[in-house]
Amino acid sequence: MSRAGVKGGGDGNFIFGGVDVVDLAEQYGTPLYITDENKIRENYRSYKTAFETVENEIYFAVKANGNLALLRILASEGAGADVFSSGELRLVELAGIPKDKVLMNGNSKSEDELIDAVESEVKISVDSLEELQTLSAVAVEIGKEAEIAIRVNPDVSPDTHPKIATGLSRSKFGLPYQQILESYEEAKRLPNIVIKGIHCHIGSQILEISVFKEATEKMMKLVEELYDRGIELEFVDLGGGLGIPYNKTEEMPGPTPEDLAEMILPAFKSTLKSLGINLKLILEPGRSIVGPASILLSRVNTIKRAYSNFVAIDAGFNLLLRPSMYGAYHEVIVANKLSELSKLSEDKHELAVDSASAPVLTTVVGPVCESGDIIAKDRMLRPVKRGDLIAILDVGAYGFSMSSQYNGRPRCAEVLVCDGMVDVIRSRETVEDLLRNQIIPQRLERRAVER
Amino acid sequence: MSRAGVKGGGDGNFIFGGVDVVDLAEQYGTPLYITDENKIRENYRSYKTAFETVENEIYFAVKANGNLALLRILASEGAGADVFSSGELRLVELAGIPKDKVLMNGNSKSEDELIDAVESEVKISVDSLEELQTLSAVAVEIGKEAEIAIRVNPDVSPDTHPKIATGLSRSKFGLPYQQILESYEEAKRLPNIVIKGIHCHIGSQILEISVFKEATEKMMKLVEELYDRGIELEFVDLGGGLGIPYNKTEEMPGPTPEDLAEMILPAFKSTLKSLGINLKLILEPGRSIVGPASILLSRVNTIKRAYSNFVAIDAGFNLLLRPSMYGAYHEVIVANKLSELSKLSEDKHELAVDSASAPVLTTVVGPVCESGDIIAKDRMLRPVKRGDLIAILDVGAYGFSMSSQYNGRPRCAEVLVCDGMVDVIRSRETVEDLLRNQIIPQRLERRAVER
Repeated sequence: MSRAGVKGGGDGNFIFGGVDVVDLAEQYGTPLYITDENKIRENYRSYKTAFETVENEIYFAVKANGNLALLRILASEGAGADVFSSGELRLVELAGIPKDKVLMNGNSKSEDELIDAVESEVKISVDSLEELQTLSAVAVEIGKEAEIAIRVNPDVSPDTHPKIATGLSRSKFGLPYQQILESYEEAKRLPNIVIKGIHCHIGSQILEISVFKEATEKMMKLVEELYDRGIELEFVDLGGGLGIPYNKTEEMPGPTPEDLAEMILPAFKSTLKSLGINLKLILEPGRSIVGPASILLSRVNTIKRAYSNFVAIDAGFNLLLRPSMYGAYHEVIVANKLSELSKLSEDKHELAVDSASAPVLTTVVGPVCESGDIIAKDRMLRPVKRGDLIAILDVGAYGFSMSSQYNGRPRCAEVLVCDGMVDVIRSRETVEDLLRNQIIPQRLERRAVER
Repeated sequence: MSRAGVKGGGDGNFIFGGVDVVDLAEQYGTPLYITDENKIRENYRSYKTAFETVENEIYFAVKANGNLALLRILASEGAGADVFSSGELRLVELAGIPKDKVLMNGNSKSEDELIDAVESEVKISVDSLEELQTLSAVAVEIGKEAEIAIRVNPDVSPDTHPKIATGLSRSKFGLPYQQILESYEEAKRLPNIVIKGIHCHIGSQILEISVFKEATEKMMKLVEELYDRGIELEFVDLGGGLGIPYNKTEEMPGPTPEDLAEMILPAFKSTLKSLGINLKLILEPGRSIVGPASILLSRVNTIKRAYSNFVAIDAGFNLLLRPSMYGAYHEVIVANKLSELSKLSEDKHELAVDSASAPVLTTVVGPVCESGDIIAKDRMLRPVKRGDLIAILDVGAYGFSMSSQYNGRPRCAEVLVCDGMVDVIRSRETVEDLLRNQIIPQRLERRAVER
């Protein structure tokens, strides 16, 4: 049900994926997540190109965006998947990602999830010694082998938000560097455990990428020590975490997969050469593939000149948690009031405006009943009125995936755009979705429900 | 389908609402929200008693917990409701709360929500001058009257988390104190607007309650000024916000509705007396009614001795966002290992333990792929092993209501307990609930889905 050519944007409207977003708002309503298929394909391919000099597989981090259509796009590109639960495992199966390109991750897998992973024949990243033992017992019970990597906590400190820095020594993830060799020895001894690789992941939204060099060197040193002990591997998984430039005016264009390759490949290749072996490199990017591919389109409900010039829109932290949760920055633009001069120049990451409708200091807030529900604080934004459209940029990662029905708000729809075509990839929830699964016990039933 | 007497807890198990939670875990699985009906009724009634010397209505803040069964319980007690969206309005209608006891709140109401509120004949709290004008136009169009209160930003600073302090001058909520009188004059002029009351809400989780005195005095001064101008009211809504003592070991028992009444009633009564009028007092408690009434029961998936002694459970910020979002403290207990000595003494808010299984420093983390997914950091907890049960206390407010399906995790079930009876009030989501509403466009379809 692709629809060709929602009419190409008139002057002043934001065009995304070849489609006028004002038309999208009219046809599908707001709030609305809009994803550009081409951007996802381009971002995925830039990884394949950057790492083409080594055998590699790109496992998309499903937690960033579990939309089936997006997973299907990535499957068609040949991507694998990093999954974090049985739920995500089902999603990637449905999307057609083959099981030999799936790694089940997780610091707190239930026994059911371990059984599921072994029966599904996906690789498993083991997060603790105790889990390794449980997994062995589970695999023996099922009568299958569990293919594993052990997750290393490499003790590096990326310059990112502490809530998403996962490779610090204090982090809940992975085994301390000092326990790795003995853990592999234990894995070798345990029945039905097959050692396949080694794994780390140092964090998310990393813009200062020298930590990847440090982590790679530590990991490759471990690989060499494992080979010294006769433990051979098939892959090294260095995780994901490449950041994207959310702030178009202040930040540099942001690191590319090529920049990342420069950090990772020297140490990786050097170990392969010195050991005279081949190893597959696995990476788990999420944000850098889908983050810049989506916008959240929202309508202005009201304007209030109080302490600040508040613009209240119909999307809040129920649909985009990052600003409230992490203090994250997202660029916002008035999507129905771009002039030729103010059109978003995506290549140059800058927002130019004409002088006639000069921007004013504005705070964009959502409809959630919390003061922390601020989408964009103190921004220079073109003057808006009720009914105008605000586009929040770069929301493809950790956007809809973290959404809730908080404040009794059904979750919004999602559309996929591609060269002017539009497809609904998630229909809008209704009040029915708030009631689903709820049961009022008989003994509390009233004779009639007042309306 | 109430079930009497899930078998009364053996030695060492946590009994909640007369039910052994270990039995609940076996029968209904984990994670599991468990709510004690009696506690909700008691907490509601304590408000009614504390304010019985004035005409009052207690409007439950639905955002704290939108579970239909809980709303039905409150409806049966005679409660009204503070709703923040059309979704919440439908929930309270279904629960049987009459429309004349409902206030529609919100800083960013869409036109559809304003229409809905007018047609539903509920009171409306107006958050901006622009909204007042839009509401008048909407009411004229429909041919009905809109009964309103204007939300005042009283500019007081409660000692709470900045994300939930809603009465600061910088907050997105309400109109500045200085704009109130002119706003009421405007309301008087506008067609189809009927002035019914005045409204404020200064924040949430407030333990230092003298700010309520300050806010009440400011509000009652406004009431007097309005009467001087010939503007009469039917009610004063002073909002909610009473805090609860999450930390049983450090915090005082916490303020009671009676304490709150001492802060509010003198100024309230004094104005009534000096004007020689009667006014209804409306309060909007949420957390203090439902917060202490629920626990989140979770199973230990794995133990890891790394930097900290990590206990990884099957509930994380997907089901309880508060610790990650606000750094909130929740008491945790090992629910299947209480001895006579260590049983939670609810009256005294203390946790005693015997010396045989002395507590160790523990960090309880969830299964979400973020370092910030920590439920309880550095707590003295009895030693646990895989399969043990952890109960997280006081999760009835802003618990399930803020839950998500992040990391591909279906949301959990909820049960209601009452004097040993158990009823499922929300069934557990499945993977189907992750797929619901998702659509893979035809053009992306593959011929076969690999598994």
